[in-house]
Amino acid sequence: MQDFVKILGFAGSLRKASYNKMLLGAAVGLAPEGSSVETFDLEGIPPFNEDLEGSTPARVKEFKARIRAADALLIVTPEYNYSVPGVLKNAMDWASRPYGDNSFKDKPVALMSASIGMLGGARAQYHLRQSFVFLEMRPVNMPEVMVTFAPKKFDAQGNLLDEDARKFARQLLANLVDAARRGRATEAPRPS
Amino acid sequence: MQDFVKILGFAGSLRKASYNKMLLGAAVGLAPEGSSVETFDLEGIPPFNEDLEGSTPARVKEFKARIRAADALLIVTPEYNYSVPGVLKNAMDWASRPYGDNSFKDKPVALMSASIGMLGGARAQYHLRQSFVFLEMRPVNMPEVMVTFAPKKFDAQGNLLDEDARKFARQLLANLVDAARRGRATEAPRPS
Amino acid sequence: MQDFVKILGFAGSLRKASYNKMLLGAAVGLAPEGSSVETFDLEGIPPFNEDLEGSTPARVKEFKARIRAADALLIVTPEYNYSVPGVLKNAMDWASRPYGDNSFKDKPVALMSASIGMLGGARAQYHLRQSFVFLEMRPVNMPEVMVTFAPKKFDAQGNLLDEDARKFARQLLANLVDAARRGRATEAPRPS
Amino acid sequence: MQDFVKILGFAGSLRKASYNKMLLGAAVGLAPEGSSVETFDLEGIPPFNEDLEGSTPARVKEFKARIRAADALLIVTPEYNYSVPGVLKNAMDWASRPYGDNSFKDKPVALMSASIGMLGGARAQYHLRQSFVFLEMRPVNMPEVMVTFAPKKFDAQGNLLDEDARKFARQLLANLVDAARRGRATEAPRPS
Repeated sequence: MQDFVKILGFAGSLRKASYNKMLLGAAVGLAPEGSSVETFDLEGIPPFNEDLEGSTPARVKEFKARIRAADALLIVTPEYNYSVPGVLKNAMDWASRPYGDNSFKDKPVALMSASIGMLGGARAQYHLRQSFVFLEMRPVNMPEVMVTFAPKKFDAQGNLLDEDARKFARQLLANLVDAARRGRATEAPRPS
Repeated sequence: MQDFVKILGFAGSLRKASYNKMLLGAAVGLAPEGSSVETFDLEGIPPFNEDLEGSTPARVKEFKARIRAADALLIVTPEYNYSVPGVLKNAMDWASRPYGDNSFKDKPVALMSASIGMLGGARAQYHLRQSFVFLEMRPVNMPEVMVTFAPKKFDAQGNLLDEDARKFARQLLANLVDAARRGRATEAPRPS
Repeated sequence: MQDFVKILGFAGSLRKASYNKMLLGAAVGLAPEGSSVETFDLEGIPPFNEDLEGSTPARVKEFKARIRAADALLIVTPEYNYSVPGVLKNAMDWASRPYGDNSFKDKPVALMSASIGMLGGARAQYHLRQSFVFLEMRPVNMPEVMVTFAPKKFDAQGNLLDEDARKFARQLLANLVDAARRGRATEAPRPS
Repeated sequence: MQDFVKILGFAGSLRKASYNKMLLGAAVGLAPEGSSVETFDLEGIPPFNEDLEGSTPARVKEFKARIRAADALLIVTPEYNYSVPGVLKNAMDWASRPYGDNSFKDKPVALMSASIGMLGGARAQYHLRQSFVFLEMRPVNMPEVMVTFAPKKFDAQGNLLDEDARKFARQLLANLVDAARRGRATEAPRPS
């Protein structure tokens, strides 16, 4: 039997009816057997200020603890102004700090995005991937999940109906779980 | 006589002793004759949430009004995790919204950054430039002002001592002022 | 009467039946009154080697001369491997050299792309925009012309049939012509 | 005993006295025990043209075969115009094609760069990393090897003298070898 893989997912938008929150919700139901997607809401994380690092806000501590406890991460985000939403980047700035206490280090990570238009999310995903270099994360390459024309793909209750989107999301989660297991295998001491 | 050019500058860091705030302070004193750099502090701008757009926070309204009243913008920012600080991006997300009310539209803009290391700021600057496309801003290309090894370049009172850095910053501001004047000239109706 | 604006267009692909060549062909017919789009084929430009700069290849000299003679540039390119085609970048590397003889300097430029899939071209366009900073070019922001699902949008003779794509391409060319005229106006001495 | 790891290295510049070729040469001598760095010169790879894919040039076939035979790749490149040299990107475009025959797939890869100035290479490295997503490669995150102010760091014979640069290059190669071995370990069937 293979080890269970715990994925922590968070969305890059705070609004209640966010398509990206819906997509994250869909991911919870698409995690492969032997894994789970739990979620964290970025609400309540204040603007980062290095002067406050001595007394890290409770919500940030909780975020970091949840990241640490996870075997892999799933980030589901819109793009704002052709880049990463400030809200998401701000939460990640907190969780990468203070220096030497980067909770993202070595975590496998997968990206999804949903947008109203035809391109949305792509530009945020590539900017995030550049941050992953510094954060020393292990991003999954493929498939890229970018749910375009979102209003046509979710029903009124926020369920992801589009079969292609579901298939790609399922495959990405399977690849993420696989990456988490491979990492674990190779962290064990190897004979030399 | 050429028209006076009002520049609004803001820093991408909230901490008090930020090198980028010091660099912004230096810029105030380096603005060419016929121009001024006034500053705005991003402190107090809450995390963006589209659900709150109906009642835009007062601090955001003030930020947008200051941007609107300016002829040009100066953004002085560190890079966090190889990209734009979430705090800065979040403030810009607010000021670009709601849809159709983007206060950055057509504004000439210049970028500066200060960092402790040898590369810092560059990666934030290029990501910001991608946002400027969507925001329909008019970035100045050169010179790029990236003050590296910052602790050696400012004195204990936060004054920028480094002559090269001062020269480049002065030139960038001159180019920004020039861009603002050129834009103004061409907005006037032209004979056809 | 406003000055005539000469645009030089080139495609980032060498293959004969390239959708991007078709799109460039469409642009020739969509240039606004008072302007023209002439084209240059990158075929025959060898791989850049600084050791050869003493005897620049004839085809490169011709490319640089054509760029210099133009009031504005139009680059129509696919993306290869999520970035700029090597063929296009190589031609631009040649035309930016030798140091101090960058033929792109101060040129207004617009970007278009065509792709078989739903995203193609976007990633090449943003990487090109980063090069434009160093090349000191003046890119037009909007509208972004990205013709997706290209096989459905051109007829068998390579004509662009899609009305939306034609409308955006026409507008982009109009904005490019406008940028070229604005630049020219402001290069003239202004009263002080 | 651990498996031997064969690294193929290539430089992004064609000129004879290229600092990046010198850095690649240094890497040959810094490979950890149990590994080797062999090199390939991009000279002779013609501009990519999809119309020529039916009769792939011999030099391209050789490049692809060498990549395939390697356990890991090392790319040592300057940046041209704030991005990847066209010459390098063009060679990679060839080696990724035709569709379905991407020789880079799943290869661990590390990046180094040398530049005359203080920032050079960084911007090329991040653009390459975006291509690696599509190419499904496995880039090493750290350390980033960017040899700045190159003329001070190599002797007249092209030897890398700078101790810091040598240390970082050695560590990056060790991490690359480790990544290659980890990949190999996890490709083996795992008990379930």
